[in-house]
Amino acid sequence: MDKKLRGAAVVGQSGGPTAAINATLAGVIRACLADGETFSRIYGMRNGIDGFLEGRFLDLGERFTTPGGEVDEDALCLLSVTPSAALGSCRKKLPDPEADPGFFERLIASFASLDIRYFFYIGGNDSMDTVAKITRYLEQNPVYDMLVVGVPKTVDNDLWGTDHTPGFGSAAKYIATTVSEIVRDCAVYTVRAVTIVETMGRDAGWMAASAALSRVNGNEGPDYIYLMEVPFTMERLFRDLERAFERHPNVVIVVSEGLRFPDGRYVGEGEQTGAVDIFGHKYLAGTARVIEKAIKVRFGCKVRSIELNLPQRCAAHLASATDLSEAEEVGRCAVRAAARGETGVMAVIRRDEGNSYSVSYGTEAIADIANGTRTVPTEYISPESNDVTDACVRYLLPLIQGDPEIPKLNGLPVQLIL
Amino acid sequence: MDKKLRGAAVVGQSGGPTAAINATLAGVIRACLADGETFSRIYGMRNGIDGFLEGRFLDLGERFTTPGGEVDEDALCLLSVTPSAALGSCRKKLPDPEADPGFFERLIASFASLDIRYFFYIGGNDSMDTVAKITRYLEQNPVYDMLVVGVPKTVDNDLWGTDHTPGFGSAAKYIATTVSEIVRDCAVYTVRAVTIVETMGRDAGWMAASAALSRVNGNEGPDYIYLMEVPFTMERLFRDLERAFERHPNVVIVVSEGLRFPDGRYVGEGEQTGAVDIFGHKYLAGTARVIEKAIKVRFGCKVRSIELNLPQRCAAHLASATDLSEAEEVGRCAVRAAARGETGVMAVIRRDEGNSYSVSYGTEAIADIANGTRTVPTEYISPESNDVTDACVRYLLPLIQGDPEIPKLNGLPVQLIL
Repeated sequence: MDKKLRGAAVVGQSGGPTAAINATLAGVIRACLADGETFSRIYGMRNGIDGFLEGRFLDLGERFTTPGGEVDEDALCLLSVTPSAALGSCRKKLPDPEADPGFFERLIASFASLDIRYFFYIGGNDSMDTVAKITRYLEQNPVYDMLVVGVPKTVDNDLWGTDHTPGFGSAAKYIATTVSEIVRDCAVYTVRAVTIVETMGRDAGWMAASAALSRVNGNEGPDYIYLMEVPFTMERLFRDLERAFERHPNVVIVVSEGLRFPDGRYVGEGEQTGAVDIFGHKYLAGTARVIEKAIKVRFGCKVRSIELNLPQRCAAHLASATDLSEAEEVGRCAVRAAARGETGVMAVIRRDEGNSYSVSYGTEAIADIANGTRTVPTEYISPESNDVTDACVRYLLPLIQGDPEIPKLNGLPVQLIL
Repeated sequence: MDKKLRGAAVVGQSGGPTAAINATLAGVIRACLADGETFSRIYGMRNGIDGFLEGRFLDLGERFTTPGGEVDEDALCLLSVTPSAALGSCRKKLPDPEADPGFFERLIASFASLDIRYFFYIGGNDSMDTVAKITRYLEQNPVYDMLVVGVPKTVDNDLWGTDHTPGFGSAAKYIATTVSEIVRDCAVYTVRAVTIVETMGRDAGWMAASAALSRVNGNEGPDYIYLMEVPFTMERLFRDLERAFERHPNVVIVVSEGLRFPDGRYVGEGEQTGAVDIFGHKYLAGTARVIEKAIKVRFGCKVRSIELNLPQRCAAHLASATDLSEAEEVGRCAVRAAARGETGVMAVIRRDEGNSYSVSYGTEAIADIANGTRTVPTEYISPESNDVTDACVRYLLPLIQGDPEIPKLNGLPVQLIL
């Protein structure tokens, strides 16, 4: 098969929103519009594969072209700093190609009806599963020439094959800034109290780890950080708290949503119904609350839990300029790779060697990436398992640098609505 | 008594932190340092009255004077944008002067030992209670010449005598920005879901009301806003949700922490122990959770509750420049009033008449202010009691304007530690 095709492209956004997923979309749109030889049109799926299968899509080339025929740079810049997925999202789990080929036949027919020859899917682990399955179907059933490229996005930073994921840097910046403010807030009273900050991160502790950045400017930061990579026990926590109370009355700890007891049970399970989502992931939201109750019983002091909740993934007002620019570039990289004939790959960010931070972009085979989870490595976790190491801080710090230009009106950020 | 005294001044911060209370402190320090004829020294109480009674204070004049003898403007500017109370805070309820005159004798002796003739106390309702009691004691027992001036501070915006309170504008800006981001995040899926955003505001709905600002730039904003000024019923909420589901699957509502049922019970009480703090206020944190459970039972859809929690009061990174500048000015106003011989007053902000926003500063008698609560007036609440009016938005909007210059290092705000 000659993979040098001319045809339409389609791009979709999938999985949880981030502050950077629209910057990646802007990168994909810009790169497609810049290569009219390869891309006849650039469509956007509304609500990912789900909406596309219902016939819901829009012509992004038209949307981002001015009446004068120029690329609408103002609108694309505004798209880049707009939080959440401007095209909408979905959480669709595709069937196995071997089990339900009919599903893929319908999907391919939808692509073919628009002469779509390039499919870009922006998302995390579950979205890369979609990319991998469509790739596999097309390999096994070479009935239609289409190139499929995944574009990474997840605040969780847990994708293999890439140094870090677009979206994570902005989430880390939000967490670091917010935890530094919370620590200051909690420090004002002299009464013994524990504040538990819960970050997202079901399967990796990267988001909790980024709370360590709140210390870099000489601020106190949290007393302890518990990552889901290490089995958690209340006994251990209580010992840590006793030590912390010797230093000061106000203790702040940070916990991963995905903390588990040594027997594998999620700490947050106690608060939940045991329900699972369509990917089989348990729904967790109660980790800090379970710990809060245990500390209250053990120490009888004031305990407050703070879930950083949705704002940690959608706080565009606090986005990292580094993250947004890399997010856009990884989108362009995906388009260029497809234009070169690559398929079944995900665009990745590679950190260059050397003391100063710089990155390059490339691709990795999607089959090696889909459904794997990149957790925080042992060398980034402190020997006592209740904090991160300096090496971890050095890894994280470049990702939160720079403030993007965010247009404001009436004292509030302006957002683009597609 | 000739109230034109020369002597030392002391300033304390009390009650919950805000993003603007340090700007007020900076205003007090600047004004005292600028009037060396009146103020021989300017001390800071550590942890308010509580710490001062334990002998914990510092010389702020020394702290904010450069080795060359100049006012350290850089440090004062950094203080203004540092969140939370740099001097620490306390929640001390003073006894009635008539019931425990001994307490006041000890307190006055502490003031006298440092020749303190001016006492500035920055805080909310409970702190103004402290100002009022010391004023009353000194009126009834004119044993020591000291002028006592309150300086308003509270994110709750519930103090009488002032158009609004320093700290509220920054909280409103945080809430408006964050809710606009949350609404975008929630809009990406097509599955029916309700998101409940809970703001602080035990005794007034101003903070919940400020979520309406998230709509001003053409964004969708929350579907409904429930203020604690209106008795709340689940039946009413369910009817509103049914109407909202006709418009879109993703519904976002905002609720005041202090919502009550028609019989007076707090909605959040179910989740709490019924414990009260030393001022007799019930400790509430479960309003959104109680509503979450009720909606799950009634609609069987996904429901998420988001407590904005401490960040809404300490998010200096998103402070309103208008708020910080007014916060500083109200501190200066308090000092000038005391230097003129005023005592037993609180510095206030008055909104000037006219179409464009401007304010003046003045003072009001503390006895009229202490322990009163300024709730959201009826004309600011929509006829259906599930939103605010345009008049409310016009009142709120000027308060969130402008972004302060915040020095950054390593991608994070720099903070001053006293």
